[in-house]
Amino acid sequence: MIKENSSNAVNKAFLYRSCRINGALDAISGRWKALIVIHISEGNDRFSLLKTAMEGITDQTLGKQLKELEASGLISKTIIPAVPARVDYTLTPKGQALLPILANLSEWSDM
Amino acid sequence: MIKENSSNAVNKAFLYRSCRINGALDAISGRWKALIVIHISEGNDRFSLLKTAMEGITDQTLGKQLKELEASGLISKTIIPAVPARVDYTLTPKGQALLPILANLSEWSDM
Repeated sequence: MIKENSSNAVNKAFLYRSCRINGALDAISGRWKALIVIHISEGNDRFSLLKTAMEGITDQTLGKQLKELEASGLISKTIIPAVPARVDYTLTPKGQALLPILANLSEWSDM
Repeated sequence: MIKENSSNAVNKAFLYRSCRINGALDAISGRWKALIVIHISEGNDRFSLLKTAMEGITDQTLGKQLKELEASGLISKTIIPAVPARVDYTLTPKGQALLPILANLSEWSDM
């Protein structure tokens, strides 16, 4: 077995850590994602509510952001069998866990 | 004086908050910035040390990232009057305050 020399181990640990941070930042970066998560947490949990609340976002952009947030496991979608059919978005546990970090980032940016 | 109706106040509060979060994310997003802050915090506080520690980064990219981090107030530069002259980078209080948030983001990404 190749003995793990210290610099190798340090490199591996660093790469692992950097992928995690960059992965996290990718999931929430861009103009809209963090805001959508906050909006859903505040009850704007439908496409129409989000569209009204987020000045300047197009239907296409909002649809794409919601898909990406769903794919990242931050939100989940429930289709309500009404007429017309309704889609509700909710934060997953991972989405919920992001809220305090966003609050810290927001305070940090005031420093 | 125009009476601040509640939705107006909510909108203003929201815009202010979204600018703060997006501002914070802009300052640390991208492939390298968060990593550079971590590296400097771990003692890789010179261009050559950073270059060695960050596989794949070019001189040009590292130089640009360091300038942007300095402009965002996360790091500061000290020119050491040696021969040849030496430049040391240090985290500002704002840079220091980012470290626990990056640690939280890193853990959050494992969820």
